[in-house]
Parts: sequence; C-alpha cells; structure tokens
Amino acid sequence: MNRDRYYMELAVEMAQKTMGQTDPNPAVAAVVVKNNQIVGTGVHVKAGEPHAEVHALNMAGTHAEDAEIYVTLEPCSHYGRTPPCADAIVAAGVKRAVIASFDPNPEVAGKGMKKMKDGGVEVVTDVCREEADAINRPFFHYISKGKPYVRLKSAMSLDGKIATSTGESQWITGERARKDGHWYRHRSGAILVGINTVLTDDPMLTARLEEGGSHPVRIVLDNHLRMPRDAKLMQDDTSPVWIVAGKTVTNKQLKEFSAPSHVEILRQSEETVDIDVFLKEIAERKISSLLVEGGGTVADSFVRSRNVDEVITYIAPKLIGGRKALTPVSGAGIEHLHDAMSFSVVHQDRLGEDIKIVSRKEGE
Amino acid sequence: MNRDRYYMELAVEMAQKTMGQTDPNPAVAAVVVKNNQIVGTGVHVKAGEPHAEVHALNMAGTHAEDAEIYVTLEPCSHYGRTPPCADAIVAAGVKRAVIASFDPNPEVAGKGMKKMKDGGVEVVTDVCREEADAINRPFFHYISKGKPYVRLKSAMSLDGKIATSTGESQWITGERARKDGHWYRHRSGAILVGINTVLTDDPMLTARLEEGGSHPVRIVLDNHLRMPRDAKLMQDDTSPVWIVAGKTVTNKQLKEFSAPSHVEILRQSEETVDIDVFLKEIAERKISSLLVEGGGTVADSFVRSRNVDEVITYIAPKLIGGRKALTPVSGAGIEHLHDAMSFSVVHQDRLGEDIKIVSRKEGE
Repeated sequence: MNRDRYYMELAVEMAQKTMGQTDPNPAVAAVVVKNNQIVGTGVHVKAGEPHAEVHALNMAGTHAEDAEIYVTLEPCSHYGRTPPCADAIVAAGVKRAVIASFDPNPEVAGKGMKKMKDGGVEVVTDVCREEADAINRPFFHYISKGKPYVRLKSAMSLDGKIATSTGESQWITGERARKDGHWYRHRSGAILVGINTVLTDDPMLTARLEEGGSHPVRIVLDNHLRMPRDAKLMQDDTSPVWIVAGKTVTNKQLKEFSAPSHVEILRQSEETVDIDVFLKEIAERKISSLLVEGGGTVADSFVRSRNVDEVITYIAPKLIGGRKALTPVSGAGIEHLHDAMSFSVVHQDRLGEDIKIVSRKEGE
Repeated sequence: MNRDRYYMELAVEMAQKTMGQTDPNPAVAAVVVKNNQIVGTGVHVKAGEPHAEVHALNMAGTHAEDAEIYVTLEPCSHYGRTPPCADAIVAAGVKRAVIASFDPNPEVAGKGMKKMKDGGVEVVTDVCREEADAINRPFFHYISKGKPYVRLKSAMSLDGKIATSTGESQWITGERARKDGHWYRHRSGAILVGINTVLTDDPMLTARLEEGGSHPVRIVLDNHLRMPRDAKLMQDDTSPVWIVAGKTVTNKQLKEFSAPSHVEILRQSEETVDIDVFLKEIAERKISSLLVEGGGTVADSFVRSRNVDEVITYIAPKLIGGRKALTPVSGAGIEHLHDAMSFSVVHQDRLGEDIKIVSRKEGE
C-alpha cells in the first residue's frame, strides 16, 4: 500500500462529490492525519465560504500540530475572500503537506508551496495528481484559457437522430440517461440553448435532481430577441436567464421587452453572436463551465468555431430514419473530413438500455 | 471445473472460428473424447463437404468405440448431401453424445437425438447452449423465418453523420473499424447496397481481409436498372452480383443490358422492391444472412419494413455537423417515436479510436 495515496484517495473522493457546488471556485478537499489517525476532514462547500483546508484544520484543532495535511489542490497564498490557506497550515504547526494538483494560474502556482516550505513544512507533490486534475478540468481550462469549459450534450438514436421527421423527441433515451444529463446541469456554471429550442420545447433548463441541485445560469442565443414573454424561462426565477442578442436589436425593442429581474440581455457587437467573444464575456462573468444542449444550429456554431471541449453522447438503441429528421449538429457543418473536430473517447458506459460516450478534445 | 463444459467450450471455439465459411449451412464442430484424451476433432468446412462429426470420428478411428462425442449442434438424422451423422455416431460405437444447440427446423428437431438414443447412446443436452446458439443465430433465423438474418452496418461520427455536407465519407472511422466491417462481409451470405451507392462510390463489396475470405453475393437495389456497364461490380467476377430491378424495367432494357455471366437480374413484380418479398426470394436462393451497407434510403426501407435484426454501428469521436450531411438511415423515416425500431445493445467495444456497438432486435 502506498500510504500517501491511501489518504489522498479519500480527499479526491470527497472533492469529486462536491463537483458542481463550488462554482466558480474549484472543488477541493483536505484530510488531516496524525499518527495514522484521521483527525480532520473538510471540503470547500461554496464560493465565499472557507476553503477545505480551514475546515479540516478547525476540526483537527490542537491535533493539527505535527500532523500531516492531504490537499487535492495547492493551498492558496493570497488574500481573497478568505485568508491564505498556506499561512493557516503553517500557523497550525502542520509538519508535512501532501498535494495532488497545482494551481493552474501561473501567477499563483508554486507560491502556496513556497510559503509552506518557508514556514518549515515538508511538501510532497503529485500524489494522485491525475485523478485530482480531472475533478477540476473545467476550472483549470477556465483559468488558463479565459473561456469556460464547453460540454456539448446530445441524446440520439443509433442512426444519429434527435427527433423524428415530425419533430417528436420526448423521449429518445431512457430515464437513467436523462437523469445523468441533469447531473451535468448541476455541475455546470451555465447551460445554453438556441431560441428555436425555447420556441419549440419551452424548457426550464434547471437541474431537476430529486434531492435538489445547483441550477446553472440559463443562456439563450437569441440574435433577434424573439424570446416570448410567456416562456417558462421568463416566468421561472430559479436561476438567472441571460439572453444573448445581436446588435440589430434596437434600444426601443430592449425597452419594450421589460425583462423581469432574473433576466438580463447581453447585447453583442455583431449581428450574430461570435462564439469566441461570447465565451470570453461569460468567463468574465465567472462562468467556468458551459453545457450546450441544443439545437443543432447552435451546436454547429460551437463546432465550427472549435469551441467544444467535451462531448457527452447518449445513444438509444433505436432506428428512426428520415432525411428530414433532426441530428445533434446541423447548420452549415464542416465541409472536409480533415477539418472535422476530433476527440478521444475517455469513457463509455451503459445507462439502462442506452449507451453513454464521453469524448474529450485532445489536449484537454 | 465442469467437465462437459470443458470439452464443449473447445468445440464452440472451433465452430466460432468457421463462421462465414459454411453458408448456407450452420457452423458446427465436434470433439471426440476417450478417457479424458481428445482423440478426434472436426469442423464442417464447407457446404457439400462432410459434417463435423464425420471428420472427428474419422480422426478418432477405432478410438471412437466407447468414446464420448461433443457436438455444438444436434447431429442430423436425414440423408442430405451426406449420410446422417446420428447413424455414424451409433455405428462408431460412441457411448455418450453431448449436444449444445438443437436443430431449429421443427421437422428435424429431436430426430437426431432419438436415433442416437435408439442406438444405445447416452445423450446429454444444453451444454454451452447459449454460446452455441449465438454462433448460428443467422442460420436459425433463416430456417425458422424463411428470410435471411439482416444486419445493418454503419460508420458515423458522434453527431450521426456518414459523410460531410460535401459528400466526403472516406474515412470517418479508423482502420480497425473498417477491417472489422470486412469480417462481417466474410461472415455474410450476401451484401446489399442501393444503386446510388454504386453511382457515388463504385464499390467492389468484397471481403478484403489480408489473408483471403469468403466473398458475399453482391446485391444492388436498382429499380430502374441504372447500373453502369463500367461499374466495378460489372467488371469484377469475384462473386455473383444480383441486380434487383422493378417491374417497369422493360424486356428491351434487359436484353440490351447483356449482363456478364456473374451478374443476374432479379426482376420484381412491383415498381419498387418490396423488402419482405425480396428477402423471401433470396432466402430461397440460400442466402441465410444479409449485410446492408447503405445508403440511407435503402436502410430506411429495411427499417420501415421492420427487417433489421441486428445493427452494427461504428462511431468515430468526431463532430462534422451540417443540415445536409448524410446520416445512416434517411428516406421518409418513422414519424412517431413509439414506432421507432427498438433494439437491445448486446455488445460494445473500442476499436482503436472508435467505438463499436452491436444491437439486436428483441427476440432475436
């Protein structure tokens, strides 16, 4: 048994289960160990609340002296909404700190470790790093690229249809796949659809998990501000709604629209939204992960601008057919095969009758 | 260890590896065992040649006396192109016969076993039955339904495209998936495409395995006899080509067509082919399994007539997009989701970068 992995695996497991609740902060967990006894555990519960290390050290109390701390992410060294965790670790008299992931922000990376070393703490790194990096992949992407991590989700038949030729789409996949989809909403900072999806399906776009969940910000690409006043998104204020409109929308239109307080209009400087510009704009608004749910034209604009980092595909073993039946990515499409966006399959699974495939852009 | 399974698993493995070479006969293997020594092994090599039991008993020679024989399929009891195997087993003095699958033909089923029992042989059944049944699923389907077992094969992107909007399709999937597809050609009695596939791709439709293979009969649905005289299928006589034409094709057209000797025209009594009628016609021509390779309109006619027994789907982790890009099943399609053809996933696998999914119609 590798003792460091033994304790870090617990911290990784704890951090994994908090994915979705810490946005826009990373999910982090810490475990304090003394004489092979676990004396402190903590997770980061929510942005604005104490970091995982602080909770774990508080629980350990005086046991923290001469103890070891296992943290899934390099402790912070700067004053944010809370004091630096590296200082807290030194102050508590911890003798050894074991770290899994590094802070991806180049201005911060290494500073937490340096502070601890300067304070006399032995620092060990790279324990369970791969597992810990995976937890905060969207966050790391967001920090390093200045754009949210984009997941494209679709549910289709074995012949690539998301609806029949008459438009029936509920439901192609089974209950387990649909519930799994709601977990992705829970774990995403924002969800995005096109206005056609709103006009056709009038969706809520909330994370409907039986026991509650984090609801993503709901974004609608709506170049000409066609959002109906009686749409569920206009009525339901569970979470903010951002309507992304083009520059042709007039001030008069905006004024007449008189959005309720949970709805905000993000007017773009182009007639139709430029996906790169839009992604940077919502990153500045602290959206670190975006779930694109449809329809096909919207998906196509993300594919053609090469802004898909992960593809979540649910496949129901059905054949539907139909030249006019909708597919997950439509629009203009890519003309040549060598220009197609390529991914690597990182996970495949059965969910009831259906199959789930997770593919990731190379380099993510 | 279950001793009967121990020897039957060898017979099953032997039969599996001969899949594709025995058409329209089933793939069968036999192992003769005496005092826990294997004294005879045999497979059915090819229709018209001796059955597996005969080869195994020949090899065993005088060792067959008081031995046991393990056979993957109930030995035949009738005079076909070879004398009944049940008689040969009795004549050789075998004391015990272990059987995996039953002959699905109700007129034959049980008769081979009765002959052996009457001849003083102890008969044990149902050993490795599931594995053995799987080997001859297409054959059993063919015997019991009077139609070939239909496999629909497609290779698509994660968003259900078989080509880009400009028609590029070579290659969406990687080499391992494509080679796997050639094994299905090897194992199929016939392969089928529509005339548009011929006009677009000019395919050979042979089983291109490096070490050789069984080439399926090549069938083209061609209602109006548009097959070009210089198509590869007209030049290459590796295996027969059957052109399925509608009743509007005139005798004059047929005469002028002057097909080479490997090409035959099956004129239908309808203007466009009726899939049920067509399948019965080729079943009478001893085709027990059919591989449908495209295009989308042809696939749709099989789906809407509910004549797809198995779906082989290769998925490349790519996004292509395009409202006009082709999908595996197009045509008119099914209008309502509750009418979609439903399958069960029986197998999923990785082939290089790609994913393979095998789904089977329920009840098959």
